[in-house]
Amino acid sequence: MAPNKIVDIHTHMYPPSYVKILTSRPTIPLVRSFPGASDPRLILLEAEVPLLNQDDAHSTGHLPGRPLTKHYSSLAQKIHFMDTHDIAISVISLANPWLDFLSAEESTGIAREINQSFSDMCKEHPGRLYFFATLPLTAKLEEVLGCIAECTKLPYCRGVILGTSGLGKGLDDPDLLPIFKSLAEHGMTIFLHPHYGLPNEVWGPRAEKYGHVLPLALGFPMETTIAVARMYLAGVFDAVPALRMILAHSGGTLPFLAGRIESCVLHDGVLVKEGKVGPGRRTVWDVLKEQVYLDAVIYSEVGLKAAVDASGVDRLMFGTDHPFFPPLTSDEEGKWESVTLNAEAVDRAVGKGSKEAQKVMGGNAISVLRLEGE
Amino acid sequence: MAPNKIVDIHTHMYPPSYVKILTSRPTIPLVRSFPGASDPRLILLEAEVPLLNQDDAHSTGHLPGRPLTKHYSSLAQKIHFMDTHDIAISVISLANPWLDFLSAEESTGIAREINQSFSDMCKEHPGRLYFFATLPLTAKLEEVLGCIAECTKLPYCRGVILGTSGLGKGLDDPDLLPIFKSLAEHGMTIFLHPHYGLPNEVWGPRAEKYGHVLPLALGFPMETTIAVARMYLAGVFDAVPALRMILAHSGGTLPFLAGRIESCVLHDGVLVKEGKVGPGRRTVWDVLKEQVYLDAVIYSEVGLKAAVDASGVDRLMFGTDHPFFPPLTSDEEGKWESVTLNAEAVDRAVGKGSKEAQKVMGGNAISVLRLEGE
Repeated sequence: MAPNKIVDIHTHMYPPSYVKILTSRPTIPLVRSFPGASDPRLILLEAEVPLLNQDDAHSTGHLPGRPLTKHYSSLAQKIHFMDTHDIAISVISLANPWLDFLSAEESTGIAREINQSFSDMCKEHPGRLYFFATLPLTAKLEEVLGCIAECTKLPYCRGVILGTSGLGKGLDDPDLLPIFKSLAEHGMTIFLHPHYGLPNEVWGPRAEKYGHVLPLALGFPMETTIAVARMYLAGVFDAVPALRMILAHSGGTLPFLAGRIESCVLHDGVLVKEGKVGPGRRTVWDVLKEQVYLDAVIYSEVGLKAAVDASGVDRLMFGTDHPFFPPLTSDEEGKWESVTLNAEAVDRAVGKGSKEAQKVMGGNAISVLRLEGE
Repeated sequence: MAPNKIVDIHTHMYPPSYVKILTSRPTIPLVRSFPGASDPRLILLEAEVPLLNQDDAHSTGHLPGRPLTKHYSSLAQKIHFMDTHDIAISVISLANPWLDFLSAEESTGIAREINQSFSDMCKEHPGRLYFFATLPLTAKLEEVLGCIAECTKLPYCRGVILGTSGLGKGLDDPDLLPIFKSLAEHGMTIFLHPHYGLPNEVWGPRAEKYGHVLPLALGFPMETTIAVARMYLAGVFDAVPALRMILAHSGGTLPFLAGRIESCVLHDGVLVKEGKVGPGRRTVWDVLKEQVYLDAVIYSEVGLKAAVDASGVDRLMFGTDHPFFPPLTSDEEGKWESVTLNAEAVDRAVGKGSKEAQKVMGGNAISVLRLEGE
């Protein structure tokens, strides 16, 4: 293994079969074409619905969502993007909202189809592509567990991407424990990724003026933080010590808020009374340093340093969030500023060309996700 | 000025007149006595309402809210707390939710009464106490502006404490601009403090099992972050360049998320199209380094380092959040662990006994808030 290989562990694809499903839907998530717009639009967020329902969406010049360019479903484009940014290996995953919106009856078949297409993509470029599979979480438990077992047989699968909804009641839902245990037993890493953000009301009556900034910049990382904190308080990390989870966007806000969470636990009348704050307790810091990995998608030296301080430099993994956040003022075929921002943050936080930078940019992912063969 | 004085800029009081108002209320915020409980309970948060409405709240052993001990309204107790923790100066403020719940008719009179009682407390201990005043934000604009003018004549007043609701529509409300401008013109610093957290639904169906941890540890800092981001996106910091604002809890999560906010702005189709992302633009980093101060109430070295990295060591100010987070397993008259956690975080982040630590522990507050006389 070349220690200076760049690995992208946060990079999404929508296979054509998934785009077809989205195109057939009347409500979000959906894909819709607008007259005069060169690409169909991918509309994912609750915050984008007001614009979607506006009759004159096109005439105002503001279309809902984002253009569904070839970056979303073309494998050739993914490889071009990797080459442009010197990325040796990508661990691709279906983007949000995965299969959350499917009925119990249809989800298992579609999950199988999608995982197979990811597997096929990896086989086309051996050694350059691995993937996180997608689980049919709206199906019966046995079907989900069956899907996990099937995924372990797909040679380039290294884990699963997971949203925060779980079975519909969040990741602190005890009914999820068999799934977490099965993933842990099979050495499948969870890539935890947000989708739902926060309820629209928190952005206030003027949110539309601010584009997508509030739900994307704040809603997404806050959603991730809340999901992990709920898992922590429910004792999931105690119940499944072998659970391993990569948190998107450097843990949302977990590295910054871990101290406040700990203090609130220590000072909570109910938890203290119930004897839940005794010695030997697994702290949030323990989880950050032993069970959780963080991607390095935080766009600043300040944030990245905090992530490294919280989890350790062996637990950070570079990512791009491609195909989201394309450049708006330069050619999409060239270098993306969103990628450069994150790469520069790594250089500044841990030292350009340092051993630590090599770990974050690829070494950690190669070692943790076993990216050295089938 | 002794450079090694400890100053506490985040420390609250409920004067007896305010407690009387809370005791008379049927809905939150309120104070209520429960049979068998030695202190009445102070119930502030939406998340505490389910327990309040439970008939058997007392029999389950879990009372809503927190005990309203003498720490909340006794000045002697505040001075004792300061002496116990070697705090030379405290800048006291009314705690949440201030006067948000009052009618337009009553709020101005009550604000005047409360500000006068804070002023009287400061006069009892000259040089040891200063205060942030409370504004009657539900009153007419002229009354609010009149209140600001009155406050500037109170010798120990150094600014105002402000929640995130503003006039009821958030701090990005253009109707607030005259108030921000008046505060800036008078050199009054705003202490921005959360109260409303996030809608209960985000904590999920099992939130009651986790005590107050989720709304306090996550809801509060997320609320602050959202409020400041909305102000930023609305251009408030551009419109009022002299605005100075201390953000509670080290900015909520702003230091950690500033990079993501910046990236989302740069990559937002709507904002770019409207020409809002041009050169010379005031970035979130500019606001953090020039218009915002952060308290040092973040309970960890990781968080405090990020706050210092984001805003600079000259902009951090120690605080205790007294009388909240009392020790649950040791004597309330002694040292509080919540205070020690924050003081130790400062020592670890910037070096115990260093010039930087002296700044954060008191020097910055003395200089920024002019705590050297009346």
